Amino acid sequence: MTNTVLEASGLAIDDATADRLFRTARTVTSFAESDVTDEQLAAVYDLIKWGPTSMNVSPLRVLVVRTPEARERLVARVPEGNQERVAKAPVTLVLAYDPDFHERLDVLIPHMPGAREIFAGDDEARAGTARTNALIQAGYLIVGLRAAGLSAGPMHGIYEEIDAEFFAENGWKGLLVVNVSAAEGAETTRPRAPRLSFDEAAQVV
Amino acid sequence: MTNTVLEASGLAIDDATADRLFRTARTVTSFAESDVTDEQLAAVYDLIKWGPTSMNVSPLRVLVVRTPEARERLVARVPEGNQERVAKAPVTLVLAYDPDFHERLDVLIPHMPGAREIFAGDDEARAGTARTNALIQAGYLIVGLRAAGLSAGPMHGIYEEIDAEFFAENGWKGLLVVNVSAAEGAETTRPRAPRLSFDEAAQVV
Repeated sequence: MTNTVLEASGLAIDDATADRLFRTARTVTSFAESDVTDEQLAAVYDLIKWGPTSMNVSPLRVLVVRTPEARERLVARVPEGNQERVAKAPVTLVLAYDPDFHERLDVLIPHMPGAREIFAGDDEARAGTARTNALIQAGYLIVGLRAAGLSAGPMHGIYEEIDAEFFAENGWKGLLVVNVSAAEGAETTRPRAPRLSFDEAAQVV
Repeated sequence: MTNTVLEASGLAIDDATADRLFRTARTVTSFAESDVTDEQLAAVYDLIKWGPTSMNVSPLRVLVVRTPEARERLVARVPEGNQERVAKAPVTLVLAYDPDFHERLDVLIPHMPGAREIFAGDDEARAGTARTNALIQAGYLIVGLRAAGLSAGPMHGIYEEIDAEFFAENGWKGLLVVNVSAAEGAETTRPRAPRLSFDEAAQVV
């Protein structure tokens, strides 16, 4: 266990890290020219894979859209206002969930041999569990990209079309499209929008 | 922009921080005795509120369950296997979304004066947007608790009952129950379960 010393911010991480992960990190709309490698993306995944999910079901899956051909197929399947960004990003991820995540529970939940069967019979409940947990993991992944010195530009896709085009064989379901670039050299377009305060967003009972 | 120097891990954050946020952090089942203050929780919120959401809708809301009376009401509304943990945690959060988040968009999206009206007419679409984005924010919040030297113990609640008991007035909808404790002194019960590798969870095209 790492020793905990709190900063003036009340946090146990230093200010530069808090800035990098949350406080000054922005959703960028123009990108650094440097490449983003699969090794960098694997380092991000190998960090955030440890984040908690319900029973460790870990349903998040990641499509890395890299080649010009694949990028063209994706550009046509995001809203028009997002197309230029997808066309220009060094690499774009489609975050998805695997509705058949239960087929991997022999690996993921070795301490509960019957885990697969809990989920096998109910497709609808399984999809709900997968979607809920993969969205929480999407939050981890956005933080993880920033932890690797990358910027994350999450945006909407047209998921029915994305699923048909990219996931016809593996059955994954798209949740979020994320442009990825080196953070340094990437830029955003507008000033930071405000947030609600703790008193506005929280209630203590 | 913080200068980026990559560690041997391929990350731009140091190993102790990567451990604290993801690699050695665990969902704990017994807790440190020290208190968790509202000031600590506000520091967490003030970090993670900056995480991106669709159009900055920021629908996550947080119920902080602290008093013995409130704790008793919550204990009765989580599955039996989770009750002892909720009873014993220094503080427990109910993460929720506000289906009426559009009423705050005048503050959150000042650059788009008509944002409220985009969401006002369609309750179902609005609930979907709120749920999706609040789950991504739940991922940020779990990381943020750890960044503040706390442990996060996410678990299921019985949300229909939680909503009726705690959110009858404000209309929030519960998503996740999270026990919170100082990380040091808190303990887990079993060895870390495995995760899928990058090659298993990602596909490159």
